[in-house]
Amino acid sequence: MTQPASIIVDWGTSSLRAMLVSTTGEVLDIREPKSGGIQFVENGAFEAALMLAVGSWFAENGPLPVLASGMITSRNGWVEVPYVDAPAGLAGLATGTRKITLENGATVTFLPGMRDPAAQPFPDVMRGEETQIVGFCLAAAHGKGLDRDCTVVLPGTHSKWARVAAGRIAAFQTYATGEVFALLTKHSFIARAEEPEPGAEPNWTAFDRGVAFAASDAPAADAFLSAVFSARTGILAGALAASDIMDYVSGLVIGSEFRQARAAGWHKAGDTVGLVGNNILNTRYGRVAPFFDLVVETGPADAAKRGILAIAGQLSGE
Amino acid sequence: MTQPASIIVDWGTSSLRAMLVSTTGEVLDIREPKSGGIQFVENGAFEAALMLAVGSWFAENGPLPVLASGMITSRNGWVEVPYVDAPAGLAGLATGTRKITLENGATVTFLPGMRDPAAQPFPDVMRGEETQIVGFCLAAAHGKGLDRDCTVVLPGTHSKWARVAAGRIAAFQTYATGEVFALLTKHSFIARAEEPEPGAEPNWTAFDRGVAFAASDAPAADAFLSAVFSARTGILAGALAASDIMDYVSGLVIGSEFRQARAAGWHKAGDTVGLVGNNILNTRYGRVAPFFDLVVETGPADAAKRGILAIAGQLSGE
Repeated sequence: MTQPASIIVDWGTSSLRAMLVSTTGEVLDIREPKSGGIQFVENGAFEAALMLAVGSWFAENGPLPVLASGMITSRNGWVEVPYVDAPAGLAGLATGTRKITLENGATVTFLPGMRDPAAQPFPDVMRGEETQIVGFCLAAAHGKGLDRDCTVVLPGTHSKWARVAAGRIAAFQTYATGEVFALLTKHSFIARAEEPEPGAEPNWTAFDRGVAFAASDAPAADAFLSAVFSARTGILAGALAASDIMDYVSGLVIGSEFRQARAAGWHKAGDTVGLVGNNILNTRYGRVAPFFDLVVETGPADAAKRGILAIAGQLSGE
Repeated sequence: MTQPASIIVDWGTSSLRAMLVSTTGEVLDIREPKSGGIQFVENGAFEAALMLAVGSWFAENGPLPVLASGMITSRNGWVEVPYVDAPAGLAGLATGTRKITLENGATVTFLPGMRDPAAQPFPDVMRGEETQIVGFCLAAAHGKGLDRDCTVVLPGTHSKWARVAAGRIAAFQTYATGEVFALLTKHSFIARAEEPEPGAEPNWTAFDRGVAFAASDAPAADAFLSAVFSARTGILAGALAASDIMDYVSGLVIGSEFRQARAAGWHKAGDTVGLVGNNILNTRYGRVAPFFDLVVETGPADAAKRGILAIAGQLSGE
């Protein structure tokens, strides 16, 4: 049976995504209201905003428990939940949750983000990605906990590299790859590029050239501040066309992320890394991995949901 | 005597700077007309623009020879002058000049930029900085040619590291440090910063923290895409204040330039490097150098003029 059992809310700065989930973890319905992000909520009226989004699910199914993660748990959100320090596993993440009760009697459990106090130069942080890491590892281990050690990369505006060992998320590091890509292609003199047509196939030849340089033996590939200038010198040398720049820079910065992550100890030739992102980024990162002799294991699209349910599952029986 | 002997024009995309120079190399007068850059010159009317700027000097002194460098020699300028390939010295740069004669009989000699065909992944280029490198080396060697081997850094939007050996500019590499700094502090989410009051003293404590991390043994300092995220994590950890960000990021990116230049072979502990920039950048780069055990030799403010005169001097007698 597909009996509704809980509501999962991924509530970020710019968007809200709610899922009605069955007892067996199946997604029965999805709500993504326009302007649902916390930046649009005025005077702290988060409960009203939640009711607006999923009130009808409560009306139909009673006060289902709500599990919330994302920036809704930050200082600018509804309930600030302190970060749980790495290393931490399912139990540690569950212990860090905060719970409130709504007017209708439903509980909202806010999941904590994570902090890596060993990161340099300051503790690194994430809010939400830890649920994807947990979900990936559970899927890879067929639901049997976080017992399999692995390295996972989560591509995005602020990509994360994370290591799971001995049943816990042991360490992680943020790479601002997506943001630097956007800055270079939208605002820079050296690599400003035309937006491609929506849905257009990437220029894989240009992309691969950027990756190939980032993965090469050239000492200049260790000099990121210099490497980005190659978008300009490539044009001047007649080696790149204006229509190459967007994907050349994409390949260069993602390739540089892999190169720098290797220097920082996250991977070495022959390793397998998990990949948990959207389809577009998974395709790009998956294409870069072989340049660094890595094997990729792509995670399930519903990694976050799996992780959230697993963390919340630790709380049952309390 | 201070007899006018030539006119030097540094003519860039956004500005024009003309100097009336004596037989002994002294600057007798300077003109910096508003909106003088080549981007403001319509329909290729460069001669009219030049006459507008320095016509009175011709009227008073006759058809003095003009020496022009900068983007005026590029495809978008007056006369496109092909790059001279490294390695090249004074004679090579002089051979690469192009000369035209104006209506009034004065000649304009356009100095070439340089290209380093050995740079990776594409040949690197500069237009104008080579005159500063030449001028610095001549000053350091008391005018006796480029005989002293040295490494020179020219800080800027697109910094250059260059090596002079055996009387020639042997190699150089561009670092887009100033541009990346501007992108991060003006447009990014992670390090957007308030403009300081004009003339305010930099926050050297914050600057030094950025440099110290870039110069540290931490493997994460090799991961530039991650290091920039520290502007954000430093705030979250309470280790940085909003008023620290501008100079913390300045120290981090300039320090990263030095770190990457070291990885690319431009310097090692104990070296002396020449420094040719404006006062503000010289101060910042000069402050970073000791973190990498480098000794700095700051170049003269008129390095470009010295270099241009020396290159043109090779042409006399033709």
